[in-house]
Amino acid sequence: MYISETKIRVRYSETDQMGYVYYGNYPAFYEVGRTEALRQMGTSYDALEKGGVMMPVASLSIKYVKPAKYDDLLTIKTIVKELPRMRMFFNYEVYNEAGELLNIGETVLAFIDMKRNRPVPCPEWLYEIFEKNMNK
Amino acid sequence: MYISETKIRVRYSETDQMGYVYYGNYPAFYEVGRTEALRQMGTSYDALEKGGVMMPVASLSIKYVKPAKYDDLLTIKTIVKELPRMRMFFNYEVYNEAGELLNIGETVLAFIDMKRNRPVPCPEWLYEIFEKNMNK
Amino acid sequence: MYISETKIRVRYSETDQMGYVYYGNYPAFYEVGRTEALRQMGTSYDALEKGGVMMPVASLSIKYVKPAKYDDLLTIKTIVKELPRMRMFFNYEVYNEAGELLNIGETVLAFIDMKRNRPVPCPEWLYEIFEKNMNK
Amino acid sequence: MYISETKIRVRYSETDQMGYVYYGNYPAFYEVGRTEALRQMGTSYDALEKGGVMMPVASLSIKYVKPAKYDDLLTIKTIVKELPRMRMFFNYEVYNEAGELLNIGETVLAFIDMKRNRPVPCPEWLYEIFEKNMNK
Repeated sequence: MYISETKIRVRYSETDQMGYVYYGNYPAFYEVGRTEALRQMGTSYDALEKGGVMMPVASLSIKYVKPAKYDDLLTIKTIVKELPRMRMFFNYEVYNEAGELLNIGETVLAFIDMKRNRPVPCPEWLYEIFEKNMNK
Repeated sequence: MYISETKIRVRYSETDQMGYVYYGNYPAFYEVGRTEALRQMGTSYDALEKGGVMMPVASLSIKYVKPAKYDDLLTIKTIVKELPRMRMFFNYEVYNEAGELLNIGETVLAFIDMKRNRPVPCPEWLYEIFEKNMNK
Repeated sequence: MYISETKIRVRYSETDQMGYVYYGNYPAFYEVGRTEALRQMGTSYDALEKGGVMMPVASLSIKYVKPAKYDDLLTIKTIVKELPRMRMFFNYEVYNEAGELLNIGETVLAFIDMKRNRPVPCPEWLYEIFEKNMNK
Repeated sequence: MYISETKIRVRYSETDQMGYVYYGNYPAFYEVGRTEALRQMGTSYDALEKGGVMMPVASLSIKYVKPAKYDDLLTIKTIVKELPRMRMFFNYEVYNEAGELLNIGETVLAFIDMKRNRPVPCPEWLYEIFEKNMNK
């Protein structure tokens, strides 16, 4: 298991007229979470795309528990439980400053060879990075 | 069962550097779908909020099948299979102009009394609107 | 002069906690306006990009007069006063259903040859389309 | 003069199919800039709104010089040149990690008494905070 944490300060643009963070903003927050997870492992999503592999999202699920508000400092906890093969699973937990759980989510991502536009397994070099970090 | 359809033209702002609609934009598209479903039934989400009841999203799931592109004219099919009680279920199917299925999703919404900030059952008048439309 | 009109229904995701459309959403609405202006002239921005020319925005200005609200049906009036040369000017006026002016704006766009990543004049075929439509 | 700096890491959701940050995202970045400027002065925009005064944007202008890319770490420099009276001026400069200027902008904000929905001068307590910080 690999767990990474990153902080996001809620922007005014991310609120809606209910006075809460719009429910459709969390997928972007989750993406920040997995971007930072990769960076903390010593690589980057950008490097992956520049290497010709992209990772579109195959599925997403979110369970909303409590709302976030403007200017809240959120903690995005990104969790990798399994090594990536054809697909890569990320789990997320979002907390506010009081430590309350706001929502939990999961995304499944595929690996796509950008030249041939076809699914491929996780590139070996990336698999090794995950392996090294998950066994720490 | 009640099925409603509405169209969304993909905006440039909704694409990402993969050249596709960003995966996090579909929750907003689904919201357009359910807004239009309510309008086609003869009511509106705005009327509901002005009547003191809001409908935050309790859960969301999306299965992505194919990407949408800039300037695509999407059809959002919003499906209500069950009458609302404490919770309200909406299912969604998004198609492009070629009739290809791009993604399917589901949201579960709660009813919240805005004054007391507490969950309540679906307001009677709204329940009756659903009942009338689903039995057509 | 060429004037084009298009409608945008305000989405819940576009409101903020003031209860109005977030001020940063209008640049995307203006882009919808110019996209539809090109379509009404018989071409498309998509065609332009596929032909190897992109039009990044060089400058933007907005004067906000009145706010828009959730579910408002806005009219985006897109105005072209001058033929495009090295730069292309678009002016915008946004109205609500009561016919009230909500904001006015201007964007200046450049033409960039995507292969060489350099500014170029407006492609001849596009210039001719503007010329034909502005003299109607 | 008061100058404040804050950092923003570009999110994938903020790119468009040109491969750059969408031009309509900078108004939200500028808002982050002024939120952090207020925080660095020892107050917050949130406190202002909770005190019954909101600050809608009256006008916005941006001059785009160079694009930002995914994962760039941007510096938002927020500059206050004048003490707020009926209106409040903020100037912005956005730089990438190489120190290149990406864009400059200006917003003019009004002060609105939320109860009466009318323009008011800058609240005295806020004026004093600006005065103290600008004379440092």
